[in-house]
Amino acid sequence: MKDTVRVTVWNEFLHEKRDPRVAEIYPKGIHSVIAEYLEKEYGFEVRTATLEEPEHGLTEEVLNDTDVLIWWGHLAHEKVRDDVVDRIYRRIVLEGMGLIVLHSAHYSKIFKRLMGTTCSLKWREADERERLWVVAPGHPIAEGIGDYFEIEHTEMYGEPFDIPPPDELVFISWFKGGEVFRSGCCFYRGMGKIFYFRPGHETLPIYHNPNVLRVIGNAVWWAKPVKRPKPRFGNVKPLEKL
Amino acid sequence: MKDTVRVTVWNEFLHEKRDPRVAEIYPKGIHSVIAEYLEKEYGFEVRTATLEEPEHGLTEEVLNDTDVLIWWGHLAHEKVRDDVVDRIYRRIVLEGMGLIVLHSAHYSKIFKRLMGTTCSLKWREADERERLWVVAPGHPIAEGIGDYFEIEHTEMYGEPFDIPPPDELVFISWFKGGEVFRSGCCFYRGMGKIFYFRPGHETLPIYHNPNVLRVIGNAVWWAKPVKRPKPRFGNVKPLEKL
Amino acid sequence: MKDTVRVTVWNEFLHEKRDPRVAEIYPKGIHSVIAEYLEKEYGFEVRTATLEEPEHGLTEEVLNDTDVLIWWGHLAHEKVRDDVVDRIYRRIVLEGMGLIVLHSAHYSKIFKRLMGTTCSLKWREADERERLWVVAPGHPIAEGIGDYFEIEHTEMYGEPFDIPPPDELVFISWFKGGEVFRSGCCFYRGMGKIFYFRPGHETLPIYHNPNVLRVIGNAVWWAKPVKRPKPRFGNVKPLEKL
Amino acid sequence: MKDTVRVTVWNEFLHEKRDPRVAEIYPKGIHSVIAEYLEKEYGFEVRTATLEEPEHGLTEEVLNDTDVLIWWGHLAHEKVRDDVVDRIYRRIVLEGMGLIVLHSAHYSKIFKRLMGTTCSLKWREADERERLWVVAPGHPIAEGIGDYFEIEHTEMYGEPFDIPPPDELVFISWFKGGEVFRSGCCFYRGMGKIFYFRPGHETLPIYHNPNVLRVIGNAVWWAKPVKRPKPRFGNVKPLEKL
Repeated sequence: MKDTVRVTVWNEFLHEKRDPRVAEIYPKGIHSVIAEYLEKEYGFEVRTATLEEPEHGLTEEVLNDTDVLIWWGHLAHEKVRDDVVDRIYRRIVLEGMGLIVLHSAHYSKIFKRLMGTTCSLKWREADERERLWVVAPGHPIAEGIGDYFEIEHTEMYGEPFDIPPPDELVFISWFKGGEVFRSGCCFYRGMGKIFYFRPGHETLPIYHNPNVLRVIGNAVWWAKPVKRPKPRFGNVKPLEKL
Repeated sequence: MKDTVRVTVWNEFLHEKRDPRVAEIYPKGIHSVIAEYLEKEYGFEVRTATLEEPEHGLTEEVLNDTDVLIWWGHLAHEKVRDDVVDRIYRRIVLEGMGLIVLHSAHYSKIFKRLMGTTCSLKWREADERERLWVVAPGHPIAEGIGDYFEIEHTEMYGEPFDIPPPDELVFISWFKGGEVFRSGCCFYRGMGKIFYFRPGHETLPIYHNPNVLRVIGNAVWWAKPVKRPKPRFGNVKPLEKL
Repeated sequence: MKDTVRVTVWNEFLHEKRDPRVAEIYPKGIHSVIAEYLEKEYGFEVRTATLEEPEHGLTEEVLNDTDVLIWWGHLAHEKVRDDVVDRIYRRIVLEGMGLIVLHSAHYSKIFKRLMGTTCSLKWREADERERLWVVAPGHPIAEGIGDYFEIEHTEMYGEPFDIPPPDELVFISWFKGGEVFRSGCCFYRGMGKIFYFRPGHETLPIYHNPNVLRVIGNAVWWAKPVKRPKPRFGNVKPLEKL
Repeated sequence: MKDTVRVTVWNEFLHEKRDPRVAEIYPKGIHSVIAEYLEKEYGFEVRTATLEEPEHGLTEEVLNDTDVLIWWGHLAHEKVRDDVVDRIYRRIVLEGMGLIVLHSAHYSKIFKRLMGTTCSLKWREADERERLWVVAPGHPIAEGIGDYFEIEHTEMYGEPFDIPPPDELVFISWFKGGEVFRSGCCFYRGMGKIFYFRPGHETLPIYHNPNVLRVIGNAVWWAKPVKRPKPRFGNVKPLEKL
């Protein structure tokens, strides 16, 4: 229980190279900001991986050494190789690796596959105010957070958000323009646990916000694998006399 | 609310043609037994469709005329065309068609896609006793059913059943050989509603059991589409001054 | 399934007698407006009952003839007799009567008892705008409602709302002043079903809003009792050889 | 996160004094066996409290020093003082103390109050076999447990179990006599988390079973309070311009 958690932060890492505004906020990439925080504040063992590395940096070996995978993507969801998605999927559902899906990764292949729905939503880029309200007061992912926290300038995501009803709903967002959004959603899938967390637009310093980082850190604790024998499926003999 | 419901009962319809034991129990196929019951007892408008018809009998037109689709398959899940699965999927998630998934169809393409998990389970063919217990006493799918009902001889399905936590769990099965199973499971996905119901082995007269048929009829009522405007996704303007 | 539903609309009926502003909006009381709508638009058999009638109008006989009870209260929660609350409670949990709890009735004795939590919330009377977003697109209580509907002037209720996680969450409200609220919440309790619906301040014509009324009508359909034998509890003999 | 957890194990402690068969299995009481295990195997700070101590051993001070309360009762639910129940209730719902409810404590005042239902069930004392199946493969309360574990001789509890649908369902029991039971159930209530766990009959050495003890230990980790500011309820000013 007191062991460390091995985290891999995956980032598409394209915006930061192409758009100077993004590079200014995240000179070493979004993944590096998150990784440094988790290492420093939570003491996790953290590595990073990005799209343009071989196998997107997510070899069998890397995934086998990963307890929780954090995923940021936006421009290039379709460029993620299907065999790598299969590998991630199996590691989550069959072996219990946790997955934290950030912001625009609602449209990533792995999230859509795990949800079984379109994962569509409303959106607007107007740098408006968001207020994330805690609606699960005893949930470990809300640790350290008050009734709400604010992000002053952000992209809007609005309902309907086409996901299955979350198994645990932790945050609901209010947006100045008139929308609401289920912003912090927990899902149990097979042996694995998935947390979707809305904040994170690339042109804004969302991942420098201490509340956003705190929630990601909490989610890692929540999503880490449970140590138990793999489930046994298939043809079985009776356990009792028939 | 008092309108009829248009039901399509889909059956792979292979066992009945190949195996005389199955043909004896279901001379006109599993689909016909279910269709006749739903027509007679519930007054639904029912049609049937099978694997070997063109487009598996599930053209755009047929699906557009279907409120609830009932699905039985076992031997030939892989023979169901991907474009037809896509069509069914869109009709459920985007337009609200209901889906009732029977027995071995836990491994059908459409169910696995909607669940996002492997849908694996334990199983055993030993013609043993099953007792289905109601665990949602106020649920409409349990209407007319007492604390439990029994199936004297059946195939066993056992936990773990690799599905997401059901949004509503209606039945849990007890098996003589020592296992339990979540046998009646409701899921909300997009505009649609899905009910998985376990009973139904082809070599046994499961679909002549009045309790099994009653549950399927109840599930049709529960799963029928809700009439409301289609959700709007994508880029939107603010509803309030920013 | 096509039978009518017998509805009793209960109202404290004090504001309307004491406050001319309320009397102007609801000259015959809030209960009468709701009752007339349900009778006319849905064809339900509707009666009403109020606090100052003997036994608050909720005798054994009346409750035995009630499929769904609608509850509005605000000033006088503590004046509702405990034996009448016990009677309502038993009729819901043991016999399946539905309960629709409106607005300030979040603090009614019957709702708090069924929830097991304090049912506290934030509130503000500032006649501000509310926008109720549908987050369960396939839910029958959302029938006829688009992505959202608005109430131009209303009291605010805000999170945290101290209820158990709803078994189905249908609406989330956005308020101009910056809050969100889980406004349409379904709960299964024993044989009964409960729907909490937020709108309804007495000094505003909320129950003349067609969307509000539509949702209440839909909720009656959803909450009506399921016809099945009463559960059997207590000491039982084995069903199988030990 | 790595802090210890302060646990109080409460036991009615009557059977052990009155019935020599029970005294033989639990010479120092059921509470002592659980307390010693949690101290030794998990390193928690554990104290015990019993019915006949002043204020049942549960003073304000003791509760304020308790992160998770474990509750065993059977004969004397009605002897537990209402003011002490109120105190426990407030500490859970308003301050986040965890509660683990064992076996016959399904009928304790505190559990019934938190559930809002009757908490009735079927039962039989026939020393028959129980098999607890894990149905939430990634849940931390199942850590260290395989597909199932068995208790060779135990009292039977059967469905329907009149509780709200659990927020997370971890175990389902199979009984030789033909019943099933939702045996491991998680509930979020206010700031607090509650776990109901079925095993534990007093005349049998259930609390010497390593799997049973393991689950209780896991549940303490799951149920411990989350550190965050207390929710603010009541009248509030707008956060945005109206």
